[in-house]
Amino acid sequence: MISVTEAKSKLFDLVQPLGTEVVDLAAASGRVLAETVTSTRAQPPFASSAMDGYAVAQAEPGQVLKVKGESSAGHRFDGLVKSSQAVRIFTGAVVPEGATRIIIQEDVDVEADQITLHRNLDTKSYIRPAGGDFEPGAKVKAPVVLTPGLISLLASMNVPKLMVYKRPVIAVLSTGDELVMPGEHPSKDQFIASNALGLKALFESKGAEVRVLPIARDTASSLTTAYKLAQGADLLVTIGGASVGDHDLVRSTAQSFGLDQTFYKVAMRPGKPLMAGKMGGMTMVGLPGNPVSSMVCGTVFIFPMIDRMQGLPAHQPYRSANLSHELSANGAREHYVRARLEGGQVTVFDRQDSSLLTVLADANCLAIRPPHAKAAQKGDAIEVLPL
Amino acid sequence: MISVTEAKSKLFDLVQPLGTEVVDLAAASGRVLAETVTSTRAQPPFASSAMDGYAVAQAEPGQVLKVKGESSAGHRFDGLVKSSQAVRIFTGAVVPEGATRIIIQEDVDVEADQITLHRNLDTKSYIRPAGGDFEPGAKVKAPVVLTPGLISLLASMNVPKLMVYKRPVIAVLSTGDELVMPGEHPSKDQFIASNALGLKALFESKGAEVRVLPIARDTASSLTTAYKLAQGADLLVTIGGASVGDHDLVRSTAQSFGLDQTFYKVAMRPGKPLMAGKMGGMTMVGLPGNPVSSMVCGTVFIFPMIDRMQGLPAHQPYRSANLSHELSANGAREHYVRARLEGGQVTVFDRQDSSLLTVLADANCLAIRPPHAKAAQKGDAIEVLPL
Repeated sequence: MISVTEAKSKLFDLVQPLGTEVVDLAAASGRVLAETVTSTRAQPPFASSAMDGYAVAQAEPGQVLKVKGESSAGHRFDGLVKSSQAVRIFTGAVVPEGATRIIIQEDVDVEADQITLHRNLDTKSYIRPAGGDFEPGAKVKAPVVLTPGLISLLASMNVPKLMVYKRPVIAVLSTGDELVMPGEHPSKDQFIASNALGLKALFESKGAEVRVLPIARDTASSLTTAYKLAQGADLLVTIGGASVGDHDLVRSTAQSFGLDQTFYKVAMRPGKPLMAGKMGGMTMVGLPGNPVSSMVCGTVFIFPMIDRMQGLPAHQPYRSANLSHELSANGAREHYVRARLEGGQVTVFDRQDSSLLTVLADANCLAIRPPHAKAAQKGDAIEVLPL
Repeated sequence: MISVTEAKSKLFDLVQPLGTEVVDLAAASGRVLAETVTSTRAQPPFASSAMDGYAVAQAEPGQVLKVKGESSAGHRFDGLVKSSQAVRIFTGAVVPEGATRIIIQEDVDVEADQITLHRNLDTKSYIRPAGGDFEPGAKVKAPVVLTPGLISLLASMNVPKLMVYKRPVIAVLSTGDELVMPGEHPSKDQFIASNALGLKALFESKGAEVRVLPIARDTASSLTTAYKLAQGADLLVTIGGASVGDHDLVRSTAQSFGLDQTFYKVAMRPGKPLMAGKMGGMTMVGLPGNPVSSMVCGTVFIFPMIDRMQGLPAHQPYRSANLSHELSANGAREHYVRARLEGGQVTVFDRQDSSLLTVLADANCLAIRPPHAKAAQKGDAIEVLPL
């Protein structure tokens, strides 16, 4: 039985960044940039006005200036602005040659082609210098998750297409004679398979493409068929059948299929019977079958693997929060307890059985209790992983 | 000029929850449930074993019991377990009649069809009672955003299809002679339109479907064409052209198109020239053209509208954080400053001009300075809106 940290490290090493592909900027949000982008443009490309007003060479309170022309967005004024002159200008327009500041239109009186500056002028220049946002050579460095803000920035660099990492393809396989899919009719001994669709949603939220395989029955031949169907995926995630019961064929069948097992069992609650290895070119992770265990292990272990396959470093948004109540001492296994985080305070749910999906659905974080953690007091800081 | 709070309230009232549609559970993650689901099943549907072991009627340390049969997942043992008997049982299997607890397999010695219980028995029952997770009649209440955890829960209720709110269709329209789309060739007076794709990514992240319209030029006829193209959308978001400049035709053309204006101008930085109203059945919001202003207004104002159209109440994830440095007093307009939140501490960027996309891309939150807020000290709590 290895520690959670060790398991995460081994799982991270089991996968590699995938290949890359070119996508339109319009479809790149949420993807991971694979190649650093270097701008060939400056932004703004020219000194531009930040306001609607008048471009002037100089400005004395009360001065009268002659309006010589107009510079509007997209249509510059081509002449020179001299000291007794002004050019009508609009936000985003090119600042004409000779102009040193923009007098906002609220600060002038207009009469025909003359303006009179007010006594109490705003002192800001309202000129955005060329390259004030970025200069040619500015970079968006890979790897990085493309946020809406970065999409805007890359658009302003005039980058219509980008190299991104491919989405990992994950095959999700539920196993067990006791399972039927939602919409099917369970016998009196059967459950509904809840994890395949839950994990699909979980992995897709992180950028993966998920193929849900038909449920494999508890026979070597059914599992063999399923493993064949999984071929071509980057990662096969099995659910259930990984513990020590006599009916647990997932591991033994995978072994006959060439499984090179990296580890089996992690000192963790929930999730002890976690298993991982390589099956040819495909990575395989066996998650426990209890609904909550598989969702917790998906978050704790599979998320970093999805990041890695998309070229990102290992990173999870662990943070610290203060307990709203006391907590008893923990046992030998690291415990990921379902909890609710509100306003920096974390409240651990009383019911922690790994079969309780109602409790998981109410949780918005996992609070982490290290092995042999002592009893904690109200107000103590505890590490949490938002869900 | 109205306050940010008033603007948000008016915008929220400008839209209504959209119609509903039925989707497969497999495609429902991130959607908003429109109709409360009531389970017709219990989970577990029967008392089931939480471990691999032996189901027994009673257990004394050292006792010898005869193994009468087997209950495996999906295949129950149909007889009764009497006091001198045990039934081999696996995780998830039906607990046979007469059994009161499960002895985990680590706590017995097996010889042929007999087991001997260890002296030091685990005292837990390891039986998950029928309905321990939920009973028939348990509800998932609408409206709620369907998380992976709720997808799992709904799967276990055997709900293969769900009624969800339709995704709002948002038409995004950039306006201005100064703009070209990414991939096009700007003249020396032009910029690249950065906001349309940034807003598309932003609104899609919140569940909307976005149609990016061709850029409208600064003519009434070009804008009229664009407004016609927008028909059928639930919301038209224009970018730029909403301020007071002589070239700002967005509002006047919309008026000739039947705009019933709700408000114009908000006491906010960035984003003062915000405009909103109804154009026939379609809601229209005019965002300012500065790149950062439009992204900030999209987050602050359009997100709650998207929520509302999907049947959700007004809610934004505002939270409190402590300033890592002092901050000067604020002016008359509520200021949404670009900032970085790390470990509960917020650091406001020095450069706040609304044209700086590099600064926005580095930000992970907006810190909110109320109108006329006094200078703040290091360590003071400040409200932030995560990006």
